[in-house]
Amino acid sequence: MDDSWVNSGQRIGADLHLELGRDGSRRAALITALREAVRDGRLAPGSRLPPYRSLAADLGLARNTVSQAYAELVAEGWLTARQGSGTRVAERVDPPSAVRTARPATRRTAPHLLLSGQPDASAFPRAAWLAAARRAVQAAPAEAFGPGDPRGRIELRRAVAEYLARARGVRTDPERIVVCAGFAAGMRLLYPGGGGGVLRGALAVEEYGLPFHRQLLAAVGVPTRVLTVDQHGAAVGELVGMEDAGAVLLTPAHQFPTGGPLHPERRLAAVDWARARDAVVLEDDYDGDFRYDRQPVGAVQGLDPERVVYLGSVSKSLSPALRIGWLVLPDHLVDPVLAAKGEREGFTGVVDQLTLAAFLESGDYDRHLRRMRQRYRERRDELVAALAERAPQVTVTGIAAGLHAVLRLPAGTEPATLRAARWHGVALFGLASFRHPEAVGPTPDGLVVGYAAPPDHGWRAALAALCEVLPEAD
Amino acid sequence: MDDSWVNSGQRIGADLHLELGRDGSRRAALITALREAVRDGRLAPGSRLPPYRSLAADLGLARNTVSQAYAELVAEGWLTARQGSGTRVAERVDPPSAVRTARPATRRTAPHLLLSGQPDASAFPRAAWLAAARRAVQAAPAEAFGPGDPRGRIELRRAVAEYLARARGVRTDPERIVVCAGFAAGMRLLYPGGGGGVLRGALAVEEYGLPFHRQLLAAVGVPTRVLTVDQHGAAVGELVGMEDAGAVLLTPAHQFPTGGPLHPERRLAAVDWARARDAVVLEDDYDGDFRYDRQPVGAVQGLDPERVVYLGSVSKSLSPALRIGWLVLPDHLVDPVLAAKGEREGFTGVVDQLTLAAFLESGDYDRHLRRMRQRYRERRDELVAALAERAPQVTVTGIAAGLHAVLRLPAGTEPATLRAARWHGVALFGLASFRHPEAVGPTPDGLVVGYAAPPDHGWRAALAALCEVLPEAD
Repeated sequence: MDDSWVNSGQRIGADLHLELGRDGSRRAALITALREAVRDGRLAPGSRLPPYRSLAADLGLARNTVSQAYAELVAEGWLTARQGSGTRVAERVDPPSAVRTARPATRRTAPHLLLSGQPDASAFPRAAWLAAARRAVQAAPAEAFGPGDPRGRIELRRAVAEYLARARGVRTDPERIVVCAGFAAGMRLLYPGGGGGVLRGALAVEEYGLPFHRQLLAAVGVPTRVLTVDQHGAAVGELVGMEDAGAVLLTPAHQFPTGGPLHPERRLAAVDWARARDAVVLEDDYDGDFRYDRQPVGAVQGLDPERVVYLGSVSKSLSPALRIGWLVLPDHLVDPVLAAKGEREGFTGVVDQLTLAAFLESGDYDRHLRRMRQRYRERRDELVAALAERAPQVTVTGIAAGLHAVLRLPAGTEPATLRAARWHGVALFGLASFRHPEAVGPTPDGLVVGYAAPPDHGWRAALAALCEVLPEAD
Repeated sequence: MDDSWVNSGQRIGADLHLELGRDGSRRAALITALREAVRDGRLAPGSRLPPYRSLAADLGLARNTVSQAYAELVAEGWLTARQGSGTRVAERVDPPSAVRTARPATRRTAPHLLLSGQPDASAFPRAAWLAAARRAVQAAPAEAFGPGDPRGRIELRRAVAEYLARARGVRTDPERIVVCAGFAAGMRLLYPGGGGGVLRGALAVEEYGLPFHRQLLAAVGVPTRVLTVDQHGAAVGELVGMEDAGAVLLTPAHQFPTGGPLHPERRLAAVDWARARDAVVLEDDYDGDFRYDRQPVGAVQGLDPERVVYLGSVSKSLSPALRIGWLVLPDHLVDPVLAAKGEREGFTGVVDQLTLAAFLESGDYDRHLRRMRQRYRERRDELVAALAERAPQVTVTGIAAGLHAVLRLPAGTEPATLRAARWHGVALFGLASFRHPEAVGPTPDGLVVGYAAPPDHGWRAALAALCEVLPEAD
């Protein structure tokens, strides 16, 4: 007997710390331990392993266990077995390499979170959501856990159709709703890229909007044309001169981020334009549920369901981490969008879909919205009062609705104010960052204050910190 | 007073069936009712509405309620209000149109479901999943419900890294795992389209594979090259002649659908090729958890984590409706994939992510897999036994692992057998449908039998129906 086998076997045995359990576990533990020994170089490429009888004796294992482990590692490519040359470590297993772990594990967060577009994450209705999940999952038919309908679960589409008709004046039926993972996912269905867009031509966009949306459109190869935004919202009259535009993306309930509703005449003009050009209006109803001083303005979609694509989600009303949204489509776009989506639901999990359906049907959603409207309204009022007292030189706009306000700053002070905010740990965006790079004319200075973002216990401190960083009166 | 107003008001009042509740509800109900009256033509475009005082009197509502409703509908574009001309229905509201509802609400399902790639939907572990959801949601930090990390929740990435190391021999750490909505979503991150692919060049694919995957690759504009598949899996030696290939997509644990594991030498050769060409191996480990006769074959990824992208999901082990999967990436691809994904989690819901993490950590996942392996193994054995007795002319292959078997049929009999299957309500695929259209040589006749798909109570009947439709011996 060659001593080197015994040594090797003993070494392996000593190093492996095999956790001996049932037979299956012993074999699995041996396989894992041998893999590790190859990986970390204890068993070098090309080196021979002890015959399985020797290793079995050394480790106190059944021969069969060791021979099966060897066979498994041969099948995986870690070891090679050739007649007459025994079992060896494969030559081509790579040397041990340190796996990089230096990537930051979490994003850095500022102490005072006033980023627009974020609801209060601490207000997610955990208990009600779990209760809805229990009802929904227990009641679901077995087929719910099979391959999903590309439109999304019928239970959710029914509940969304009912809710949108009631709360947003949307005219649709469940067959024209397609569930998706939010606004961006919906846009990717309308412009799936690879040359096969559901919508044609350039997309007219508002002068102000999310940089993320512009990046998305650039990534999927959609050219954009810019509409001026004034106190009545987007100047949709400019569409007439945009010969190559096949669609216009609007935020009619609450222009993002400047904050006003689209003027009634312009709502009609946008629909008129879409009819005349065989184009469509994309209605981004990102925060339509939040209006504080009167009823929310109903959706433009209701004016002409065949010319408006309505995009909504629970990202502002419940949580952006749920990743649930919907497209309400004109009839002629349903089949093209489903073709882009593929024959199965590709993204949105069935448990969340069924849970949201139950959450809507039980009235939990309405209750949650009422609670959040009250909370955000109080914060808005406190913001307005604090500014009136401590920074009267700053004008607040866009506060009738939504989760953010725009603070107009004295000309030229936005960059320095943002620097001061960073210094004081206040995370918020300047107005300039939302402006389309091709927009013409000067950019007014301003801050976009997401007053919904902080948790209740952090709101007052965030507001105080904000007031600290605002520029002094001239 | 003009009688027409009174009539109109009475007519509206009579037709509206206002549900009178609290003040807010009355106003909302009136708005909805007026919208409906415009939509269905009862209030024609251009017609004048009664002064709000008259309507208020007719309906027994406060004047303020009616005037607010009018104002709201003007804001939405349904009505117009001009000095001296009163309130009128907007001219441009579209005529009432029947919303199409004829689209089929659910896909037609055959009585005997033997489609490959589907686990038994009736076996989804509802109670254990709900219990895990409760633990996970209650324990989650508040920031979990804010905008998500594009890599996915750290809790899930940790649990997946631990599981894959233990069960599949995958070498990684949580920082190199990116959560996605399944295989296709992972591929879309690697080939995001719009000209900005993370991976370069053509993709070599196996001669047999899912048509859905080929469609996906065509949609995102990735050219494919075809590798022959034989009894040892994909002939990766052919990669050497494919000068433009930048990656190869393999199903090493269980070639889909033909069913064998990739030969050990070929596992090593694929990694060698990737190293020599600065290319990558895409390892589609779609059913690696299911092996019946011995330990599952470990992942190729373990041989060289810097040259293999590992794609996994719970679509076969739990449910395709959960839409949860993961990419295990070489370090150099992490940042490009995150750039393609965007700065936030765009698709996978946080509740499911946290729930799966808890489900893995508690051992529920292992327990579920053991139960399902046992169940599927029994079905496989029954399938083999039934065929041996009732259709000895049919050879069964690919049964050591996975959720399906391939039945080799006498030459030329596949089309007629599939017709017979349809006639008898047996839903399954023929082998030919999985073959790449550019593959050379004759296509052997066969059936791909997904024995995992039916519920327990339907399995025996499905098996009997399958035996009925198989061709007679020559």
